[in-house]
Amino acid sequence: MNDNLDALFKPKSVALIGASVKELSIGNVIIKNLLHYQFRGPVYPINPKVDEIRGLKAYPSIQDVPGEVDLAHIVIPPPFVPEEVENCGKKGVKAIIVNTAGFKEMGAKGQALENDFLARARKYGIRVVGPNCQGIINSDPAFNAYCNFTFTYPNPGHISVVAQSGGVGAVIMQAFYDMGIGQRMYASNGNGSDVSITEIISYYGKDEETRAIVLYAESLENPQEFIAIAKQVTARKPILAITAGRTDKGAEASRSHIGGLAGNISMELIYQKAGILTFSSQEDLCHAAVALSSQPIPRGNKVGIITNTGGPSVIAIDELVSCGLEIPPLSKKAAKTLKGTMLESASVRNPLDVVATAGPGHFRSALEVMMKEPQFDSIYINFVTPPFVDCENVAREIAAAAKAGNKPIVCNYMTDKQKWGGTSEILKQGEIPCFDFAETAARALHALVRYNQIRSAKVGSVKKFKDVNRAAVRSILHYALSHEREVLTATEVYGILEAYRIPVAPWKVVSGVQEVVSAATEIGFPVVIKADSESIIHKSDVGGVAVNIQDAQEAAAVAETMKRNLGGDIKFFVQQFIPKGRELIIGAKAVKGVGHIIMFGLGGIFTEVLKDVAFTISPVSDTEAIRMINSVKAAPLINGYRGEKGINRAKTIEIIRRISMLGTDFPMIRELDLNPLFATGNEICVVDARIIL
Amino acid sequence: MNDNLDALFKPKSVALIGASVKELSIGNVIIKNLLHYQFRGPVYPINPKVDEIRGLKAYPSIQDVPGEVDLAHIVIPPPFVPEEVENCGKKGVKAIIVNTAGFKEMGAKGQALENDFLARARKYGIRVVGPNCQGIINSDPAFNAYCNFTFTYPNPGHISVVAQSGGVGAVIMQAFYDMGIGQRMYASNGNGSDVSITEIISYYGKDEETRAIVLYAESLENPQEFIAIAKQVTARKPILAITAGRTDKGAEASRSHIGGLAGNISMELIYQKAGILTFSSQEDLCHAAVALSSQPIPRGNKVGIITNTGGPSVIAIDELVSCGLEIPPLSKKAAKTLKGTMLESASVRNPLDVVATAGPGHFRSALEVMMKEPQFDSIYINFVTPPFVDCENVAREIAAAAKAGNKPIVCNYMTDKQKWGGTSEILKQGEIPCFDFAETAARALHALVRYNQIRSAKVGSVKKFKDVNRAAVRSILHYALSHEREVLTATEVYGILEAYRIPVAPWKVVSGVQEVVSAATEIGFPVVIKADSESIIHKSDVGGVAVNIQDAQEAAAVAETMKRNLGGDIKFFVQQFIPKGRELIIGAKAVKGVGHIIMFGLGGIFTEVLKDVAFTISPVSDTEAIRMINSVKAAPLINGYRGEKGINRAKTIEIIRRISMLGTDFPMIRELDLNPLFATGNEICVVDARIIL
Repeated sequence: MNDNLDALFKPKSVALIGASVKELSIGNVIIKNLLHYQFRGPVYPINPKVDEIRGLKAYPSIQDVPGEVDLAHIVIPPPFVPEEVENCGKKGVKAIIVNTAGFKEMGAKGQALENDFLARARKYGIRVVGPNCQGIINSDPAFNAYCNFTFTYPNPGHISVVAQSGGVGAVIMQAFYDMGIGQRMYASNGNGSDVSITEIISYYGKDEETRAIVLYAESLENPQEFIAIAKQVTARKPILAITAGRTDKGAEASRSHIGGLAGNISMELIYQKAGILTFSSQEDLCHAAVALSSQPIPRGNKVGIITNTGGPSVIAIDELVSCGLEIPPLSKKAAKTLKGTMLESASVRNPLDVVATAGPGHFRSALEVMMKEPQFDSIYINFVTPPFVDCENVAREIAAAAKAGNKPIVCNYMTDKQKWGGTSEILKQGEIPCFDFAETAARALHALVRYNQIRSAKVGSVKKFKDVNRAAVRSILHYALSHEREVLTATEVYGILEAYRIPVAPWKVVSGVQEVVSAATEIGFPVVIKADSESIIHKSDVGGVAVNIQDAQEAAAVAETMKRNLGGDIKFFVQQFIPKGRELIIGAKAVKGVGHIIMFGLGGIFTEVLKDVAFTISPVSDTEAIRMINSVKAAPLINGYRGEKGINRAKTIEIIRRISMLGTDFPMIRELDLNPLFATGNEICVVDARIIL
Repeated sequence: MNDNLDALFKPKSVALIGASVKELSIGNVIIKNLLHYQFRGPVYPINPKVDEIRGLKAYPSIQDVPGEVDLAHIVIPPPFVPEEVENCGKKGVKAIIVNTAGFKEMGAKGQALENDFLARARKYGIRVVGPNCQGIINSDPAFNAYCNFTFTYPNPGHISVVAQSGGVGAVIMQAFYDMGIGQRMYASNGNGSDVSITEIISYYGKDEETRAIVLYAESLENPQEFIAIAKQVTARKPILAITAGRTDKGAEASRSHIGGLAGNISMELIYQKAGILTFSSQEDLCHAAVALSSQPIPRGNKVGIITNTGGPSVIAIDELVSCGLEIPPLSKKAAKTLKGTMLESASVRNPLDVVATAGPGHFRSALEVMMKEPQFDSIYINFVTPPFVDCENVAREIAAAAKAGNKPIVCNYMTDKQKWGGTSEILKQGEIPCFDFAETAARALHALVRYNQIRSAKVGSVKKFKDVNRAAVRSILHYALSHEREVLTATEVYGILEAYRIPVAPWKVVSGVQEVVSAATEIGFPVVIKADSESIIHKSDVGGVAVNIQDAQEAAAVAETMKRNLGGDIKFFVQQFIPKGRELIIGAKAVKGVGHIIMFGLGGIFTEVLKDVAFTISPVSDTEAIRMINSVKAAPLINGYRGEKGINRAKTIEIIRRISMLGTDFPMIRELDLNPLFATGNEICVVDARIIL
């Protein structure tokens, strides 16, 4: 990974291969954008058939350009792209944006063309954005680089955007613009053949002026690298992402949009592991970015509310409380002070209703007192602009309080922004994040709190257990793979679990009926007897499973019957019968490019009917294991309920971490299910398990 | 209820008692608004101290006004309001808006003043809006009545708003205005001392030009009347409401905002029963109102998607599928047609990606084909405005398709609305509901589908069971009440349940040890024995409950012990012991002004840990009972799971309806819990129950 993308984001000169005189063409629009946005360097249209485009001298080929070219757009049809990349190489171009579509996303022929031009770019050390993309924007006044065919001209600001889909990127850019919010850099990298989202995130992470990063990705080439880099970035500044393709139908549209390696099912988990704030709504994401790029991060989730209108504070509190934020009461001292300074009809508590007739002085006192209350981590303001109040001076008080204090403020600013243009401008200059609705302001505040939770979360540790027997597992897997078997036998499964010290009930594999009785006697009744064969997969369907066998006589009878029905050469898997305890499920599933996704839940109906399970990506740290256990809705059952003792959490966490390690050590394990484990008393024990390669 | 509110909403003349020359005063702002909005009739400022306000002649008192006065604002301090109401009566004023605050919401003194002016208004047959309110607006060009102190001047349209909180009403009015959406009527009725929200809803319901009604209420004076009226209205046009105070903290802020009778916990249930579309987000509500007031109602939940950009369709599908909408495939015939008309790079399926370079012809063909597909009930469009496409003609095609077809269209219109002003105007003229984000457009479409579901839902019937014994229940309740007892004894509880034919296990109440044995033998072992006494509430705490008594000897021993420990005069409640089946809970809780809230759920952890229960307001119809049963997350367990038979639904529904009827017949029952009922095989039986008065 190389995150020096200066040639791309800070070009000193730009050429456009495929420049056109036709106004409704990409080859013309990009030149228009560069000129309109006042790009600081020369722009070179490349077109062998014309002399001039939009007043600029056109050149027959990139090699005819007199000066150096940092960045070249290529907007010509796919078959001609490789040759032009070659020409760029000869010219010494440092970076290329291939806007043209029709490569990997269109199948094998396109993939071959993409591979071709990419090999040539690599030969010359040229970085490529795209193909099938819009390009980049850098609003830094030193560059004013609008190397993109979109139509929104962002003002300088502190939010940088990277989007795999230019459509979504453009929507988000327009949304910030409509809110009057500046932006720093923008990139739509389409197929991502060379410059990756991870590199761009890393680049934004190092850019001092970028305070918040907005991300839209439908897939990632190398999720583990992305997680590692994004984790470093989120420690310094927030990354906000849309979780796309979270439903099956959405994932289907996504997969055919841009071919990627990772399944969409894991995007949310990748983001979670990287400490990225996720959103299902683009608008919520934009609002959160506005708050995060302008406000200090609160130390906690406790909110003080100032309002000059009743209903919106009801709605704000509904949303804040739904988001898990708290509204602690005013201190007695603060209440006393405020009773002296507020209007008589004011409601002095939290929320503090200063009432609609409150003027600048009332707001000043309210802000001064609330900002100082140590039990408030942030301040939420409902500010409607009554026609009978000096609203501009109210806005000045809000801006002054924000500047003086170190607590974040969000504002539900309810007004006609044209009639109250002066007031709006004061709030904007004061960098007060303003939102049209109580609930959107509340959600923006929630994002600030979430980011604090991410930043201050305990860093977990991934344990490498020393007591495991890798060789044993390797040998079992090797044997199964060499026999082209995907489903492991019970003997193999339990062998692997024991090698990784995952607690299983005592078991033995034996051959004859008499040996079954001996094994059962040795293990102790009651026992389970299973026919264990490489060829029988669904044992219970063919009478190959008998549970709760009480004595030697019953064991012999069962074994005889199985032998008769399933063939004389079967083996028997004899295991202690564990009476039903609290049922758990722990699983692992390999996802290409990601590693294993680890699952935890209470088994049975909790998993199958209520889908009450938690996931994370391996390797699983202790804090991640704890989070999984705590995040299922049925967690109270795990912790003990109505006098029933809770399960042994330490052992549960250890099993999760051992399974995670097993997956990391043996990536060929496609699926692993411990289902169920029974937790009884202080013990946890695997009762049934399945491994698929 | 009198829903002829013409004097209020269609005034021919307006007076303002408390008119002021001070610009920053309500008494001035209302006059400014009336003039600015070009009110069609005369405006009479009332102020004894000045001759003229804003160029209008001022009168010393209402009685000095030369012409008739339909509507008078009163904006003077509370103590003077009653007298001015009296003067209005003498003048023949038909309706009054009391803008002034400081009445019921400020305590007993305010309540007395409110009662006073209200009595005077009633004496003269004057209708009153407020106090503590903004007033009304009617955008009908025949009136142009802006009798309100807010600042947004709505254009004529088809959405009418009624809000208890003027703050929320103003936000919603401004939101429609910012979206370029017209509005019809507006009312903020504050304390609602006389004209009720129900009357205003009824009035809007009869207004031909109102196509959708937006409601914000924190409480309702007479919920059952509201439900009855709103049901009639929602059959004709949609009502959309914000559910305010849905969290405890929110409810607390709400209760102190405007004193109301009904607890906020029941607002969502009231709305549900009335067929009102509920929203937790004001913005979502506004978007839904735009779609509902401009589009036909879809017949089902199946959506055809046309998009000219990839990512936003991934987001749209995520949201649509999350909302329960379906995205069926294109028919083969349609796919064949479209393959011939679309660009080569287009993706011909559902979603139909016409790609960014698609022009008007491609959109025309896409719309024609998709609108005709019988498997689509509605059309969702993602329309980004590429700078290289003739977007105005694309917009014309969309508008033409909407006009020609009878399927609703929603559009995620992604653009800079100033640069693409012409395109925006064409979509607006075509009444295409346009939204800035894929997910907001998807949610607006979901609202259309929800309204169709409400309108087409089977009308349920409330059964009056003839086989109940009201007299028996009346006598039991009378006895308990006359002894000032709130908690009924087991004998009383089971007596009531039997009188209403709710299946309980056979039981007997007896006095001595020998009688316990006889009763148990008669009922059949195993049995439960409970000490039944008016003074013992928590029986199990004092050893007053013994379950699963196997034989006569055990029964005698248990009875002896209880007698010894709990006193010689106790009675014994002997009941058949029911082995554990699928556990259910059915309950009823009286809510003042509402009636009983009826609850259904699977008991135990489903109720206590997972809070997986459903509620509705009595009287409960069969369809409501079915909806409750189906809406719990654990419903698959009710219907049968993994070979286990489901519960007897018909009997469950009947018990719910009988409990509902019991509550309706005996409003003094404060709380009733059947917890648990056991469903085993085909039977359902109450195992424990509790009634509190």
